[in-house]
Amino acid sequence: MSHEYSSMPHKDAPIGVFDSGVGGLTVVREIMRQIPNEKIVYFGDTARVPYGSKSKDTVTRFSRQILRFLQTHQVKTIVVACNTASAYALEELEKDTDIPIIGVVKPGAKVAAEVTRNGKIGVIATEATIGSQIYTQYIKQLNKNVTIYGKACPLFVPLVEEGLWQDPVTDEIAKRYLSELIDIDIDTLILGCTHYPLIRSTLGRIIGENVTLVNPAYETARELKEMLGNKGILNEEPPALGANQYRFYVSDGAEKFKHFANSIIKYGILSAKTINIEQY
Amino acid sequence: MSHEYSSMPHKDAPIGVFDSGVGGLTVVREIMRQIPNEKIVYFGDTARVPYGSKSKDTVTRFSRQILRFLQTHQVKTIVVACNTASAYALEELEKDTDIPIIGVVKPGAKVAAEVTRNGKIGVIATEATIGSQIYTQYIKQLNKNVTIYGKACPLFVPLVEEGLWQDPVTDEIAKRYLSELIDIDIDTLILGCTHYPLIRSTLGRIIGENVTLVNPAYETARELKEMLGNKGILNEEPPALGANQYRFYVSDGAEKFKHFANSIIKYGILSAKTINIEQY
Repeated sequence: MSHEYSSMPHKDAPIGVFDSGVGGLTVVREIMRQIPNEKIVYFGDTARVPYGSKSKDTVTRFSRQILRFLQTHQVKTIVVACNTASAYALEELEKDTDIPIIGVVKPGAKVAAEVTRNGKIGVIATEATIGSQIYTQYIKQLNKNVTIYGKACPLFVPLVEEGLWQDPVTDEIAKRYLSELIDIDIDTLILGCTHYPLIRSTLGRIIGENVTLVNPAYETARELKEMLGNKGILNEEPPALGANQYRFYVSDGAEKFKHFANSIIKYGILSAKTINIEQY
Repeated sequence: MSHEYSSMPHKDAPIGVFDSGVGGLTVVREIMRQIPNEKIVYFGDTARVPYGSKSKDTVTRFSRQILRFLQTHQVKTIVVACNTASAYALEELEKDTDIPIIGVVKPGAKVAAEVTRNGKIGVIATEATIGSQIYTQYIKQLNKNVTIYGKACPLFVPLVEEGLWQDPVTDEIAKRYLSELIDIDIDTLILGCTHYPLIRSTLGRIIGENVTLVNPAYETARELKEMLGNKGILNEEPPALGANQYRFYVSDGAEKFKHFANSIIKYGILSAKTINIEQY
């Protein structure tokens, strides 16, 4: 373990972003769009993916190792771009460091609490995120007059990773997962897993146009921008020509990661490097 | 790391069996049926499951940790009840220990090479197992006059784990994965992932009754019995009353494992214990 973080973050220090694998790239994509001058160091735990079916202890242990890895890159802030890790590990990580940490759950919960009209909010996510009841807790803190309906959707991640973004099988599975939420007549649906924005059009078509889809990736990038601005560490200058603005690390299969990542991020991921995360 | 194995294995020492998660229980089930006097220590790497989409280096590192864990239980032999780990790590494990190790690939390959009549053998498995070409290598050593057609089926594991053993969605995905193999007119199909026997009836219906399904779990238990007999370490006595014949360890989620395991093994899994495999 190495801990090289200085308590005086520089504007031009990178933002650390991590996820269990590739899903967090939907968050990276939003950060690139909304604050294009920032440097990013991304870590995807592809050796141990997925997190969504695993326990709090295990996800917290993995997340701590990743925090230590990102600290070696002198990051100025950390974005937990994984709903499961945000649900299970965020509070523990905050105890381990002074670096500000943003998860994806709070920003999504906040917007959902604001936009609902009939007070019925659906959350679709991994087993772990739904089991943690974290969205319910955050939303209830902001708005007591709502009811939150959670639905675990374990097949969405493998379907997305298999590339079936537009496919009758994904339609059929989505119909099953969403049917209760449709019957309940929710008016707001949180896409509570970073993979889900990739099947947003399928989900929107099946849930119906009267339901507002909340994408926590978008809301997280907005909150990140605001937080960096408030702390005076938003990078206003574009990085120097030739600077390595975006760096990608994974715990397994860098080439495969690069291939999938380039289907999500149009900016082009030139390289990704494999590291042994268990050593951190 | 601890290494307590004695080079003089006792008949009544347990058999170590490991897998990336729950799939290896189909192998355990066959061992229980075919050699019911044996003790078993099972390890499922549920914290890092699945292996089938990961690299050789990573799967080998994980498998070595598990070997060291099983050695602390003085096992008399080890069964690698995971096709991916058998494909990637078996040779490396054999360098690390004198304990005899059996994988699931060779026994399945052997039977397929024997039973094919038209010389066209299909193999369905994870991306990793198919990519390794391991079934092709073994079968070609035994029978040069055959052609092996491999097909990676990444959605079968999540579908099985979601409980969709008999379901129109599983049918649809199976039709897609198997269509090329049907067109090629294979007469033998190896179920090259330990999860697949759980959807055997779906696979058999779609591939057609003229195709022989080879279940490596069954063949592995047969070869294990023969090997133990040849070495004079087959346990002929049933374990003492009250002996803990079957012990199950996982790296995450022991309760969830127990629940799924009891749907596969009718003998009843009384308890499962979580250990931190990264410490081995």
